[in-house]
Amino acid sequence: MSTLFLRTLREDPADAEVASHKLLVRAGYIRRAAPGIYTWLPLGLKVLAKVEAVIREEMDAAGGQEVHFPALLPREPYEATNRWTEYGPNLFRLADRKGADYLLAPTHEEMFTLLVKDLYSSYKDLPLTIYQIQTKYRDEARPRAGLLRGREFIMKDSYSFDVEDAGLDASYAAQRAAYIRIFERLGIEYVIVQAQSGAMGGSKSEEFLSPTEVGEDTFVRSPGGYAANVEAVTTPVPEALPLAQAPAAHVEDTPDTPTIATLVAVANAQQPREDRDWTAADTLKNVVLALTSPAGERSLLVVGVPGDREADLTRLEAALSPAAVEPATEEDFKAYPQLVKGYIGPGVLGPQARPENVARGDEGDAAIPYLVDPRVVEGTRWITGANEPGRHVFDLTMGRDFVADGTIEGAEVRAGDPAPDGSGPLELARGVEIGHIFQLGRKYADALDLKVLDVNGKQQVVTMGSYGIGVTRAVALLAENNHDELGLSWPIQVAPVHVHVVATGKDDSVFEAAEELASALEADGVEVLYDDRPKVSPGVKFKDAELLGAPYIVVVGRGLSEGTVELKTRATGESEQVSVDGAAATVAARVREALARARS
Amino acid sequence: MSTLFLRTLREDPADAEVASHKLLVRAGYIRRAAPGIYTWLPLGLKVLAKVEAVIREEMDAAGGQEVHFPALLPREPYEATNRWTEYGPNLFRLADRKGADYLLAPTHEEMFTLLVKDLYSSYKDLPLTIYQIQTKYRDEARPRAGLLRGREFIMKDSYSFDVEDAGLDASYAAQRAAYIRIFERLGIEYVIVQAQSGAMGGSKSEEFLSPTEVGEDTFVRSPGGYAANVEAVTTPVPEALPLAQAPAAHVEDTPDTPTIATLVAVANAQQPREDRDWTAADTLKNVVLALTSPAGERSLLVVGVPGDREADLTRLEAALSPAAVEPATEEDFKAYPQLVKGYIGPGVLGPQARPENVARGDEGDAAIPYLVDPRVVEGTRWITGANEPGRHVFDLTMGRDFVADGTIEGAEVRAGDPAPDGSGPLELARGVEIGHIFQLGRKYADALDLKVLDVNGKQQVVTMGSYGIGVTRAVALLAENNHDELGLSWPIQVAPVHVHVVATGKDDSVFEAAEELASALEADGVEVLYDDRPKVSPGVKFKDAELLGAPYIVVVGRGLSEGTVELKTRATGESEQVSVDGAAATVAARVREALARARS
Repeated sequence: MSTLFLRTLREDPADAEVASHKLLVRAGYIRRAAPGIYTWLPLGLKVLAKVEAVIREEMDAAGGQEVHFPALLPREPYEATNRWTEYGPNLFRLADRKGADYLLAPTHEEMFTLLVKDLYSSYKDLPLTIYQIQTKYRDEARPRAGLLRGREFIMKDSYSFDVEDAGLDASYAAQRAAYIRIFERLGIEYVIVQAQSGAMGGSKSEEFLSPTEVGEDTFVRSPGGYAANVEAVTTPVPEALPLAQAPAAHVEDTPDTPTIATLVAVANAQQPREDRDWTAADTLKNVVLALTSPAGERSLLVVGVPGDREADLTRLEAALSPAAVEPATEEDFKAYPQLVKGYIGPGVLGPQARPENVARGDEGDAAIPYLVDPRVVEGTRWITGANEPGRHVFDLTMGRDFVADGTIEGAEVRAGDPAPDGSGPLELARGVEIGHIFQLGRKYADALDLKVLDVNGKQQVVTMGSYGIGVTRAVALLAENNHDELGLSWPIQVAPVHVHVVATGKDDSVFEAAEELASALEADGVEVLYDDRPKVSPGVKFKDAELLGAPYIVVVGRGLSEGTVELKTRATGESEQVSVDGAAATVAARVREALARARS
Repeated sequence: MSTLFLRTLREDPADAEVASHKLLVRAGYIRRAAPGIYTWLPLGLKVLAKVEAVIREEMDAAGGQEVHFPALLPREPYEATNRWTEYGPNLFRLADRKGADYLLAPTHEEMFTLLVKDLYSSYKDLPLTIYQIQTKYRDEARPRAGLLRGREFIMKDSYSFDVEDAGLDASYAAQRAAYIRIFERLGIEYVIVQAQSGAMGGSKSEEFLSPTEVGEDTFVRSPGGYAANVEAVTTPVPEALPLAQAPAAHVEDTPDTPTIATLVAVANAQQPREDRDWTAADTLKNVVLALTSPAGERSLLVVGVPGDREADLTRLEAALSPAAVEPATEEDFKAYPQLVKGYIGPGVLGPQARPENVARGDEGDAAIPYLVDPRVVEGTRWITGANEPGRHVFDLTMGRDFVADGTIEGAEVRAGDPAPDGSGPLELARGVEIGHIFQLGRKYADALDLKVLDVNGKQQVVTMGSYGIGVTRAVALLAENNHDELGLSWPIQVAPVHVHVVATGKDDSVFEAAEELASALEADGVEVLYDDRPKVSPGVKFKDAELLGAPYIVVVGRGLSEGTVELKTRATGESEQVSVDGAAATVAARVREALARARS
């Protein structure tokens, strides 16, 4: 410790919000170099190396072969798949001295595809799974939470190549199994959830989410085992209702009802029903969204959701990817005078407003597309805007009085909603994505013309999978999930050292005994950090040891005169006196047992 | 081999000029992703990892502590040291989504300085040496020779921090000694030469050059042990001659003598001397250079060198760094009509042309600075241009008839030139820079305000050293220096595998025996590549084995019926028959001996 490049801090860094960020900085594991960009100090690098080693071992055991791609890549391959544009402002772009366009790669599908195309040409070469552990870049709008969401970060990304769909299934299953082993060995709790493929394309994907309050992702689980990222949750579609039973639609004055709550109150006062009160669920709320395509084109979209639910921007963004989504602005409303804020109804939206369906002439040219929640099925009746200030239409019936351009999963998912597979009510939880596995299918191979000769000598487009683990994020998550109010508390398999030996007091004999113990442990293969600082108080040393978070802390101090040292277990806080003579053997045995437990 | 992600090529890649580039691509170690940017395939990555491991071990043994900085860095620290500008077009620059300027770091002096400033504040914390093995970027004008000069490459860079100059000397010596151990362990021949510090600044620097014909660097050596990069060679300054002995200068018609050779011929014909003929060494050639500052400003400079030597652009660039240097263009000459091409003399240059020294008026405003070779000392007499077409001046005497603004090391260094330290005549050789160590002194600490309290409680600016090894370049150099016409031939300590086992023929028994041998070797800790491809001819397998370059090749084939396998040593081509029963033990022993030899 007297020479280790380390300075612990008693104060949390000003920009840190989550525990892992605070503690990794305070304990001297990382330092911020720029927003979302971190430097690794010696202890942090040791944890990172251990996490990488576990991932590498399991990737190799699953038949993966390690390669390493550049981070600085030419534009052309990403142009071929349209991702140069689709990534929008998340991509770091630059030009070289000759003006050629480059990017800092956020992920490497294109390059892996081209490399396999360069090397391989026959079905006999496949299946193949190759991977890398490599630095990636993403120009996040809001880098946050230290390593949890950075702009320069390390990922393990692997890619599988198969001729047949069944081969892809097998490769996907092998990577999925390897991920399970990796997270179990690292001691990271995970839930495997169905996920949207998003900008990656492809047919099937699952996320490994680690449940934590500080997670940015929301996921759902049902008692029957359904689990999905909130973006991927699908709404069970109700049965259509007979149109004949619906009363005729009628427009009513509903003054001062720009919100759902005011509307429901007025409806119950002015149009009371005998069987039950009107509720928000009887209203259809039409939410105006502004979409921005990756190329920067802005357009409006209206989404109709039952009035008892909020529109969920995260789900909408996933459904509308790669467009960026935001609520429409005053400017947008001005550009479309048919939108009467607070009183918007289907009458001026989507099919109803198309020139071929209306006699109103030019107005129809500006028809705004209209999508509705899957619950808005044929025969459902709604109170909704009449497109005039202070007026609503009642009993407007889907399939008779209005239609939409389609449905969209854009309403919030709520605890208690039914799972789409009928496995019971959903509960919601928050998590951090630590792994994501995709069946890409033939999207990239098609775009980049990766084909091999099959058994019959015919050219076949290869089918691919893509599999990622956030390596730096895993370190953050391990810190997040293994700390207390005193500091970090690493699982032994990823701890920077196994044992922290603290010498307290001023007696030479204490320092001699401590150094002897540290040396004996190291000779026995135990990793030791020895606090040999001569003029630092025991209190400061204890605080530092607890902050740094080695799994075992051995204090050599006052007990030495009675022939004992103190052995503390960081995670439990348990403490015991151990004979100084047998201390090295006792501690080494404890370390070996803990390592063995972690591996089993 | 049947599943290894590898495809060997029989043809050299079209863009490759040097053997290491050709062979590393042909043998499937690397693939080009963009100019100067390479992907590492599985075998290449294994070599890289072994090189990194040796460097890491020696850095740790020398007391270095490993850290890891980002590659993507903010502009500000590099602005503070002026390197944002000084790097000119060699720096990859980019802006993030908010328009903030970033760079891809070519080297990390600024960040290391700031990190130490962030963590440390007292002399007690020093000395400190920290290092990283990390990806760096340089937008080379002419990326070439594969990994030898890339635009994305891996470096080990370390930095030392001391309070006193003597401490820097000790830190520098420790790194220098570690470098010697590293290159010896890697089996890389090296010469330590004095070097220019260039854009790094600082007071002392040495390069580790590996002698090779394909090297871009020229260096000199003397029998007495002097060695320097050609940029750093200084010219012994002759004694001044008495001005009184020089005859008066006289201008002569020398029609059609725009070159030194024509001038010498005319001089001997028209102005013959009694004692000896005029030679090129009697003439003073005035070379017009155009300098471009990092900020893009262009200016002219004239350098006077004895006519028997060429001006050396490399030495001039080093002397004039950070400006870029090129010969003046026709445009430049037009802008300065006082420069009569082919007949330029000191009369219109430097001090002679300054307004305060001439009565000619305005012309002097455009006075071009004038530097001369160190051999142009007081009293030396020259034939040089008279600044009129077809006329030269004879016996123009330095210190009497003209002066210069100073001297510059800009003339070529030639074999046989005397070493500056009197240690004998120089010989010239070519090499590749594999390491560079600098005493930076206080340049970066001053610019970034890195101070610590000294023993007396006073703030002291820290003194630094910077030490680099080109890691990817070392791999290229190992390939360059260890190959023959058949392919690569790796030193065992960096070989991707120790033994390449080749099964030939179609007999199952051959494949069984080969697999058994491979397994036995692996169980014994030997790294094996087993060529199990069933339908590939022996000829192709042998060619591949020789191309890939494992130090030992074991052929299991026809000899098996007589109970033998063939053991070939790749480097020497030696071949011997070994009993199949003892083969694993024999080969493993051979491998262990070779590894031990490499380590000693």
